[in-house]
Amino acid sequence: MKKLINHPDYVVQEMIEGMALAHPQIIRKLNDTNILVRTDLNNAKVALVSGGGSGHEPAHGGFVGTGMLDAAVAGEVFTSPTPDQILEAIKAVDRGKGVLLIIKNYSGDVMNFEMAMELAEAEGILVEKVVVDDDVAVKNSTYTVGRRGIAGTIFVHKIAGALAEQGASLDEVKQIADRVILQTKSMGMALSSCIIPAVGKPGFELPEDEMEMGMGIHGEPGIERKKVVSADEVASVLVSHLQKEMPLAANDRVAVMVNGLGATPMMELYIVSRKVSQLLQESKIQVHRTFVGEYMTSLEMAGCSVTFLKLDNVLAELLDQPAQTIAW
Amino acid sequence: MKKLINHPDYVVQEMIEGMALAHPQIIRKLNDTNILVRTDLNNAKVALVSGGGSGHEPAHGGFVGTGMLDAAVAGEVFTSPTPDQILEAIKAVDRGKGVLLIIKNYSGDVMNFEMAMELAEAEGILVEKVVVDDDVAVKNSTYTVGRRGIAGTIFVHKIAGALAEQGASLDEVKQIADRVILQTKSMGMALSSCIIPAVGKPGFELPEDEMEMGMGIHGEPGIERKKVVSADEVASVLVSHLQKEMPLAANDRVAVMVNGLGATPMMELYIVSRKVSQLLQESKIQVHRTFVGEYMTSLEMAGCSVTFLKLDNVLAELLDQPAQTIAW
Repeated sequence: MKKLINHPDYVVQEMIEGMALAHPQIIRKLNDTNILVRTDLNNAKVALVSGGGSGHEPAHGGFVGTGMLDAAVAGEVFTSPTPDQILEAIKAVDRGKGVLLIIKNYSGDVMNFEMAMELAEAEGILVEKVVVDDDVAVKNSTYTVGRRGIAGTIFVHKIAGALAEQGASLDEVKQIADRVILQTKSMGMALSSCIIPAVGKPGFELPEDEMEMGMGIHGEPGIERKKVVSADEVASVLVSHLQKEMPLAANDRVAVMVNGLGATPMMELYIVSRKVSQLLQESKIQVHRTFVGEYMTSLEMAGCSVTFLKLDNVLAELLDQPAQTIAW
Repeated sequence: MKKLINHPDYVVQEMIEGMALAHPQIIRKLNDTNILVRTDLNNAKVALVSGGGSGHEPAHGGFVGTGMLDAAVAGEVFTSPTPDQILEAIKAVDRGKGVLLIIKNYSGDVMNFEMAMELAEAEGILVEKVVVDDDVAVKNSTYTVGRRGIAGTIFVHKIAGALAEQGASLDEVKQIADRVILQTKSMGMALSSCIIPAVGKPGFELPEDEMEMGMGIHGEPGIERKKVVSADEVASVLVSHLQKEMPLAANDRVAVMVNGLGATPMMELYIVSRKVSQLLQESKIQVHRTFVGEYMTSLEMAGCSVTFLKLDNVLAELLDQPAQTIAW
């Protein structure tokens, strides 16, 4: 295993320290935790907390800042943070207006965030939650009942965060987050596995000439393992699955995200995004904005995911609001 | 070779098409070329043109836009664009105020950009050039006489671009670019090679337990090949080489870039950046801003580089000006 680390036991702690040291204008680290909170916590607004296992960077710490999250809780690699860690984040950012938890749909995350929610409510804090399940690849999966939450989660951070910044109530912020979740669909594929530092070897092997369609961001099985096909065919398969789950018609408006899983060069992401753009153009679907880059990764896995968010005027306007984070 | 591509012969063209399709608000592609220019070319200002071989994305197309470059010319992978391509970019963005060429110091790039400069001057266009040679690792190298240009080039784009945007003259923009070049030092290291699509196999092999310090962004040899050491030691070695070349004293002010070469997860970049931050803190050097991410890559090479830019008030103020590009 070749990695730029010091010791597998300290990768998360040292990464969080590195992020806080690099960007003190935007985020700070809560002492003795792996929690990043906004440096500027002055104004009275609904607070947004997300998080989950580490290894998906820049998610979620990279999206803490003005106009997005108020705190991100980092668990160990691919492991949910504990309820007490999540509770601490909630308490750190609650300003009396309530806290919205944005949870990716994995059993461990859902259980621990819900437990933290109960503990916070017992302390008199108003808390609501939304669960993101944008991955259309499989119905149930390792670690998940129902669909998995993947890169589309970032659109939830962005739009709910923009509305919260404008002073909306907890109910309003939760409602818009749920609306984004309903209208956000993603699907990914992988060319290679990744190595969890504490394990030291790949979680699975993909033969040199095979790819897996629909693979999850922890290497959970997808729909089909097959011979490597062209970037255009990959894009077409992903788009057709998204279209099946959320049919888009001519003149519908979308935001598109082509997300790299960690080791895929930007060159390849743009070759995929080219075909996605062309397919949408052919269907006369209006693309409001396209995001290409690394938003929700899986350590050094090679591969990508495509996300469509169906927009209306309200969602488009909130998506375009400025945000000050490391990675938006 | 597992890559998300269609055919090795078309990777650059399709990537450039993908970039233009994804971000029409920011960039457009000149017909029948691999040149990206700013969508908004209205105002009369000095124009900045950069470019070079492809495979270093987001450099340089990702830095075209308001406040940075006016055009980027993409050659084939790791191959300089031709003089006529560069000339076409110059002519597309010249608005009578002159054009500054920002060239990374590789023999092919320098030769072709200089030839394009002569051709443009023959057509009556005012052109100046600067050559970036921030890589302190080696004095001469494969493809290079003198030091190589690597990630520090992005600081030149940013600061010269900000000054040009304010309406400065060609002389003033060239002068500040030269000042940034003088005060910018970088050094990189690699854990693995990358595969040029048209070649189909790695350009060299690094054994499973070795790394190379000072390696270039095309896999050119560095200073030393050695057993893999910790992230902290990697950071310390890179910083000590930078300090030797451009000694920094207490209260000096710097901008820092920890740049991923393509396949290195953000987790690892932040573990390196943590140590860099700590070393600068110990030396009481003031860090104005830290940039961590992929700015100048080498396809899917694993590794990173560290760049220091020594700042004064003028440079800091220009660095902080807003820019609208894909990747800044």
